[in-house]
Amino acid sequence: MKDISKLMNYRSDIRVVDATLRDGGLVNDFYFTDEFVKALYLTNIKAGVDYMEFGYKASRELFDENKFGKWKFCKDEDIRKIVGDNETDLKIAVMADVGRCDYQTDILPKNESPVDLIRVATYINTIPAAVKMIEDAASKGYETTCNIMAISGVRERDLEAALEILGQSPVNCLYIVDSYGALYPEQVQRIVDAYMNAGEKYGKKVGIHAHDNQKLAFANTIEAVGDGADWLDATYANMGRGAGNCAMELLLGFLKNPKYNIYPAVQFIEKHMNKLKEDGVVWGYDFQYLMTGLLNQHPRTAISFTKEGRKDYSEFYRELMVQDE
Amino acid sequence: MKDISKLMNYRSDIRVVDATLRDGGLVNDFYFTDEFVKALYLTNIKAGVDYMEFGYKASRELFDENKFGKWKFCKDEDIRKIVGDNETDLKIAVMADVGRCDYQTDILPKNESPVDLIRVATYINTIPAAVKMIEDAASKGYETTCNIMAISGVRERDLEAALEILGQSPVNCLYIVDSYGALYPEQVQRIVDAYMNAGEKYGKKVGIHAHDNQKLAFANTIEAVGDGADWLDATYANMGRGAGNCAMELLLGFLKNPKYNIYPAVQFIEKHMNKLKEDGVVWGYDFQYLMTGLLNQHPRTAISFTKEGRKDYSEFYRELMVQDE
Repeated sequence: MKDISKLMNYRSDIRVVDATLRDGGLVNDFYFTDEFVKALYLTNIKAGVDYMEFGYKASRELFDENKFGKWKFCKDEDIRKIVGDNETDLKIAVMADVGRCDYQTDILPKNESPVDLIRVATYINTIPAAVKMIEDAASKGYETTCNIMAISGVRERDLEAALEILGQSPVNCLYIVDSYGALYPEQVQRIVDAYMNAGEKYGKKVGIHAHDNQKLAFANTIEAVGDGADWLDATYANMGRGAGNCAMELLLGFLKNPKYNIYPAVQFIEKHMNKLKEDGVVWGYDFQYLMTGLLNQHPRTAISFTKEGRKDYSEFYRELMVQDE
Repeated sequence: MKDISKLMNYRSDIRVVDATLRDGGLVNDFYFTDEFVKALYLTNIKAGVDYMEFGYKASRELFDENKFGKWKFCKDEDIRKIVGDNETDLKIAVMADVGRCDYQTDILPKNESPVDLIRVATYINTIPAAVKMIEDAASKGYETTCNIMAISGVRERDLEAALEILGQSPVNCLYIVDSYGALYPEQVQRIVDAYMNAGEKYGKKVGIHAHDNQKLAFANTIEAVGDGADWLDATYANMGRGAGNCAMELLLGFLKNPKYNIYPAVQFIEKHMNKLKEDGVVWGYDFQYLMTGLLNQHPRTAISFTKEGRKDYSEFYRELMVQDE
C-alpha cells in the first residue's frame, strides 16, 4: 500500500513542470499569442510551478518557420521577450527531439540563454543519440532530462539497458512518457520501479509525462508520485495532443506542499483556456483515444478522426481492428 | 504491488452493473425514451454486462409522478414492457433509497417481478433502516446490495461498525459509493480493505460506485478491482450526476473476461449517447466538480453552477472557500 502519511505530507523534491505550450502546441501548431504566453508565465510563478516548458527547439532546416508558431522553435530572443531576465523561482525549459533539433548550433551556452533545462525526447532505439545531446547540453551548463517516449511499447530488458546507459550520462532526471496513454496504474508502478532502481543507483530523479487516452493521466501521475517519481508534467485544462495530459489543476489540488496554489490556475483557465476552446482548439478525451490507448497504438488515427469531425465510433473501431492483421 | 498476472487474467466473480438509467436519470429527471431503454437493454446483453439498473423505486407519496420520467419509480409493468420475461443472462436491478421508498408495498415478491436485485442506498447514519429494507427484500426472494453513500466523509470506526451490522444481515454485496468523487486511489485501497475484511468474515461481496469529479472514477474502479472488489458500477459515456461515473467503455476495455465485449457499447454510444448530448443533456468532468470533489463536498453547488451555464470558475472557487467558515 502507498504510504498515506507521506502522501498527506509532501516531498520537497517534487517538481511540477508546466508543459502547456509544448504539448498543447501540438494541437494548435504552436500559435499562442504573446498575451497568452505572458499570462501563463505569470500564472506559473503565482501557482508555485517549478518549470515552464516553452516549446520545442525544432530544427529550422527540417521545419518551415512560416508553418508554425514561434514556440516550435523557442529562440532565446522570443523567450526573453516574455520573461526578460526571468528573475523568479520559475525555471525555463525547452524540449529537444533526437533527430529533429540542430542542438550544436541552436542551443547556446547556458550563460547566454534564459533557458535552464533541456528536455531531450527520444525513442528507445536512439538512446546513444540522446546521450550525445544530453552531454552537449550539460557541458553548456544546462540541467537535462531524458524523456523516453512511447514507453508502453518498450520491452523491459531494453528499458533496463537504456536506463543503464542513461544512468552513466550527466542527465538529471529520467522521464517516463506514456505517449499512447496506454498504461494502467499497476503498470506505471512497475515502470517507475525500474526507473527508480536506475535512479537510485546513479543519483537521477524520475519523472512522468502522462496522456489521458483512458482518462488515467492524473491517476497515473499520482500513482507515480506514490512510487517515488518527483518530476511531474501537467498542462492547464489538460491541453495536449489528442486526449491531452494530466491537468495542472488536478495535480495542484493533489499536492500538499503549501508552495503550490490552485487559485491562479483557476483564474488562468477561466480567462485563457476557456477562450482557446471557444476559438475552436480541440483536445481532450473522447472514445477514439480510448481505442488507440487500449490497443497501445500511436493516437494519429484518432487525431485524424477528430480533425475530420467524425463521430462514427463503430466504423473507427472496425478500422483499428483490421489494421493489425 | 497489484498482482499483474491476476489482472491480465480475470476473476469469474466480477460483476459489471450498468447504472446508466439510474445515475444518468439524475441528469435528465429519468426521461429516457422506450427506444433508448430497449436499445440499452439489448446492448447490455450483447456486451456481457451482468446487471442493468433500471432506476429508482421512489416513493410515489414523496415524489410527483408527473414531474419525473417513469424510471424514477420503476414499476414492474414498465420494466416488463422492455424486457418481457427477460429470458437472458442479464439480471435486472433497481435502487431503493432509505427513507424515500415505500418498499413494503412497492416491492412485490420476487416471483411476481422481473427484478432480480434490490440495491439499498443509505447514508452511514441509517444503517439499521437499510438492514430492514435488505431483510424485506431478501425475504421476498431478491438478491441485495447495500450501497453506503458519501463514503469519503465516513469515519473509519463508524464504517467498521456499520460493516459489522451489515455483515450479519442477508445482504449479498457491500458497496463503496464515492458520491462526492473525493477519493484518491490510495484511499480507495484502504476502504476496500475495510470492506474486504467484513466481506471475508461474513461471506459478502464488495462493490464500488465511483464518480468522476477528479477524473478518477475509472482509476478508482480498477484500483478496487486490484484490491478484491468484484461488483463494478459503470455507465455508458460515463453518464451520471455531475461529473458522471466510471465509463462502461473504459471498464469493458480493461476487463479480460472474454464474456465482455466493447463493440456493442461503442455502437450504443455512437447512436444513443451522442444523441443525448446533442439534445442538450449535460454531464461530465469540469472544473467545478474538481473543486467540490477536492473539498469533499456534495456536488450540488457545482451542479447549480453547471445548470446556470456559469463559467466564472474563480468566483465559484471563492464561494466554496468562504462556505465553510
